[in-house]
Amino acid sequence: MKSFRKELWFETTKRRQLINITPDVEDCLEKSGIQEGFALVNAMHISASVFINDDESGLHHDFEVWLEKLAPEKPYSQYKHNGFEDNADAHLKRTIMGREVVVAITDGKLDFGPWEQIFYGEFDGKRKKRVLVKMIGE
Amino acid sequence: MKSFRKELWFETTKRRQLINITPDVEDCLEKSGIQEGFALVNAMHISASVFINDDESGLHHDFEVWLEKLAPEKPYSQYKHNGFEDNADAHLKRTIMGREVVVAITDGKLDFGPWEQIFYGEFDGKRKKRVLVKMIGE
Amino acid sequence: MKSFRKELWFETTKRRQLINITPDVEDCLEKSGIQEGFALVNAMHISASVFINDDESGLHHDFEVWLEKLAPEKPYSQYKHNGFEDNADAHLKRTIMGREVVVAITDGKLDFGPWEQIFYGEFDGKRKKRVLVKMIGE
Repeated sequence: MKSFRKELWFETTKRRQLINITPDVEDCLEKSGIQEGFALVNAMHISASVFINDDESGLHHDFEVWLEKLAPEKPYSQYKHNGFEDNADAHLKRTIMGREVVVAITDGKLDFGPWEQIFYGEFDGKRKKRVLVKMIGE
Repeated sequence: MKSFRKELWFETTKRRQLINITPDVEDCLEKSGIQEGFALVNAMHISASVFINDDESGLHHDFEVWLEKLAPEKPYSQYKHNGFEDNADAHLKRTIMGREVVVAITDGKLDFGPWEQIFYGEFDGKRKKRVLVKMIGE
Repeated sequence: MKSFRKELWFETTKRRQLINITPDVEDCLEKSGIQEGFALVNAMHISASVFINDDESGLHHDFEVWLEKLAPEKPYSQYKHNGFEDNADAHLKRTIMGREVVVAITDGKLDFGPWEQIFYGEFDGKRKKRVLVKMIGE
């Protein structure tokens, strides 16, 4: 069994931002030399997400509006977690969007449907945060 | 390490539909010959879901009502993604329900609790779409 | 390839409760002898969750309030699933929080970011329920 590990680092300019990391994960896969196996891609921080969806700016706007409706950032005082912090909403938004994805590796490629793209979802940005890419297989 | 791959194809008659695919995944497992490992089952389309829950029609009705409350289909104009399409709500509904499940394989069986069943959740149907089953192990 | 399997048992005193199971999973990993691989931790019951977030009591209070807003327990009659049961809300809450996590194993350790902790999320407790820990690797 082969295994591969890499951390991807991000520092967004905005509090909330979606970044397409598919090319980074494909680069990891090529370096790993794995032909058949699984790729795990997960946020290493609990106010961020890794998820799979469409790379379409209208949809990304819809995600922003929708997440603000389901788990609004303000007023900060509505959340008990916001004693010394102001990011309780980010923990909730990441819960909706998910921490991780597991992607099949087939013939040395990410085994994707037609529109699947992997995103880093930042919900409490403007500081350095990481995504873990771990692959196992043969 | 053994690996196995199969695509399951669906064309639902309704826009939204939940289909129990547990027997299909069990069939894949038998064909794979894997005794110990992991099974990944994921939607290959970004407006559909694979999830695990109860095969109970009342609950499935509750899911429909609940998802329509959290991410309503109409009015279509509320979503920016709906320029040339009308399925923004399906992307959001699938986000709630999840893209994939990973199931343990033990002694050549899906290692399930008493009521766990795997479902394909279609939220923008009436056309051909796929689920990927990928298994690795020994 | 090595594999490891263990069930963790819980019987909460309250209907809803969050339990940090990170030490239990670390104990499994030590027993498994796996250095590089994946750990799957999943609820075996469909009204419970396994998820990763912060071990902070304020945030846990926020999760409780938030889940009650998105998928309220009462009135029981709002859900069709509640014919012979009263736990439809627990199925919905678990859907938001997720069934499972997959965690990378690196150098014989759970490969976590700074604040990641694994929780059992019980949403229909006061009876015996299980979590499955399954690990594969080398």
